[in-house]
Amino acid sequence: MKYAKVYAEDVQVGSEMPPLAKSPIQQIQLTRYAGASGDFNPIHQDAAFAKAAGMGDVFAHGMLSMGFVAQSVTDWLGVGSVRKIGVRFAAIVRLGDVVTCRGKVVAKRPPKNGDGTYLVDLDLWAENQKGEKVITGKAVAVLPSRT
Amino acid sequence: MKYAKVYAEDVQVGSEMPPLAKSPIQQIQLTRYAGASGDFNPIHQDAAFAKAAGMGDVFAHGMLSMGFVAQSVTDWLGVGSVRKIGVRFAAIVRLGDVVTCRGKVVAKRPPKNGDGTYLVDLDLWAENQKGEKVITGKAVAVLPSRT
Repeated sequence: MKYAKVYAEDVQVGSEMPPLAKSPIQQIQLTRYAGASGDFNPIHQDAAFAKAAGMGDVFAHGMLSMGFVAQSVTDWLGVGSVRKIGVRFAAIVRLGDVVTCRGKVVAKRPPKNGDGTYLVDLDLWAENQKGEKVITGKAVAVLPSRT
Repeated sequence: MKYAKVYAEDVQVGSEMPPLAKSPIQQIQLTRYAGASGDFNPIHQDAAFAKAAGMGDVFAHGMLSMGFVAQSVTDWLGVGSVRKIGVRFAAIVRLGDVVTCRGKVVAKRPPKNGDGTYLVDLDLWAENQKGEKVITGKAVAVLPSRT
């Protein structure tokens, strides 16, 4: 982890993650996500299809929002720090929604692997511009020690 | 869930998910993922940067691979079926790697919400072309009943 951005000594239980506010969801972003992922399900691209499916309009891939959540952690702690991540999809993200990702440290576990790294447990969530939670989740990140 | 593809009666404990084999990871895919997600960390784009960071070469965003895993479920069970998903990142995915996502049903829980939907627990994993697991995970999906 030569690219560590944050060390274990830098965070404590209760430490808050810097919020990550993403730009409003645009159709072109969903199209780009389809091109990047190879997931071309029309429910994210074709308003008529989405309406016929009872969804009212296209909506964002759940994994796009989950990607925002993961990015909020890696922007803070560094790429490669996230060992585990799990989420619950709480609400649909629609065009124009502004997703803000937040989190905090809920546990910091001392090294036990002999490599001096700490594991930190994070509570994570993402909310829309109305303050509604669209994702809740947890992650485990590994942080090196300065010592 | 008017767009259900699979009903609770269609799966049992032990049912295997149809494998999803993705195309080999290309640099342009990582660049597209950056454009879609807004995550422009150079460690996924710039080989010299990645080498200087001790990673040897660029590698795929963890969330891209996790997106493949989620897609394997939604391709099978339908978009909107995934209520929870969690993964552990087991190995780095590099350029040229072919990621194949697999899974199976490990539990099927009878309805208790009065809406007749079942919850199914899935074990999920993704492996590379050498058969090495790059992601392991679990998901909970909701399936309607035909009755």
